[in-house]
Amino acid sequence: MRSEKDRTGAGQQTAASPPRRNVRGESTRARLTQAALESFAANGFHGTGTREIAEAAGLSQAAMYIHYPTKEDLLFQIAIDSHKELEAIVIAAQARACTPQEQLREWVHDFVAWHARSHTRARVINYEMRALSPEHRLEVAKLRRSIGFVLRRIIGEGVEAGVFRVGDTGITANAIVSLGIDIARWYRDDGVWGPEEVAQRYTDLALRIVGC
Amino acid sequence: MRSEKDRTGAGQQTAASPPRRNVRGESTRARLTQAALESFAANGFHGTGTREIAEAAGLSQAAMYIHYPTKEDLLFQIAIDSHKELEAIVIAAQARACTPQEQLREWVHDFVAWHARSHTRARVINYEMRALSPEHRLEVAKLRRSIGFVLRRIIGEGVEAGVFRVGDTGITANAIVSLGIDIARWYRDDGVWGPEEVAQRYTDLALRIVGC
Repeated sequence: MRSEKDRTGAGQQTAASPPRRNVRGESTRARLTQAALESFAANGFHGTGTREIAEAAGLSQAAMYIHYPTKEDLLFQIAIDSHKELEAIVIAAQARACTPQEQLREWVHDFVAWHARSHTRARVINYEMRALSPEHRLEVAKLRRSIGFVLRRIIGEGVEAGVFRVGDTGITANAIVSLGIDIARWYRDDGVWGPEEVAQRYTDLALRIVGC
Repeated sequence: MRSEKDRTGAGQQTAASPPRRNVRGESTRARLTQAALESFAANGFHGTGTREIAEAAGLSQAAMYIHYPTKEDLLFQIAIDSHKELEAIVIAAQARACTPQEQLREWVHDFVAWHARSHTRARVINYEMRALSPEHRLEVAKLRRSIGFVLRRIIGEGVEAGVFRVGDTGITANAIVSLGIDIARWYRDDGVWGPEEVAQRYTDLALRIVGC
């Protein structure tokens, strides 16, 4: 089971970074977002001070400000990285399969597995969205819509093909997304179910939800 | 649609209060928990100061301490009141119906409608649980188990009666609970779906999830 810490480095690589940033700068930024993530998860965005983030990353506050002028910039970086990663995951999942049933399987499996494996990050990006500036929130919302749109299209195509029976595509998609997101709240690394087991079982439930 | 504010007074009446507390004390306590709830929802538990709670309730900090010695006591009061209210709601829902299908309908309907109507409170009691002391967290966890137990029993009886087809009762119950709880994250009072509409549609989805 890959844990949050294993994955955060990988998450950072998906950041929308200006070109030609040097490697040392990248690793400093990754240390800062990792420190911020841990503090936000433990104490909430509003309960975290910039000094404790800088200290946990082994930097002075002045050095931190070069990379992230505000605490909100750190939250935004975490949110953008995570949502881009998740968007790439669900687009790849859909592309791997042909029929709406198979596409739904892949989408739900990978969406759920990501939320179980990255539950700390998922909690922060879902529970602290209100702390983002309006502009940043809009940017993140665009990615969220894109992630949800892939699912809605799969459901819509399944309904058109006559393999799914769904009352309302929007509320059905909402429900399936909720199954995944709420994992971030209850999932424990030392719990009885691993990410793969939850993903498989939730995939079956999602197929039931669409009446397949 | 009854909003969070309309309902909070009712929530307070379910508090486990010592007997014979006077009415004025009750209303002060209700003002304090309401002020705390609004601050916790807006700024998180850790981002809220006791002074701002006292001020919002029109009290001095000294006067507040008589009722709630710590900020954590306020969070605990909110969590206990809300979970007791929710426990009473799902027990009554089950008692209203006879067959497992009808019981599941009633449980899901009322659980979902509560989370839509009381979404602010639901967010606080679900996202800030980690801020409770270990003893208080245990007490709240007991109520949460009781709420979930009612659902598991309904599912178990449906499986035994041969009307539900379920792979794993625990994970199925978890999924249905997630549908309800995650409403607190996405529900908006000015959104397209009201509490009743979400409750009805989610009830249908829950019946699908149990293979009914």
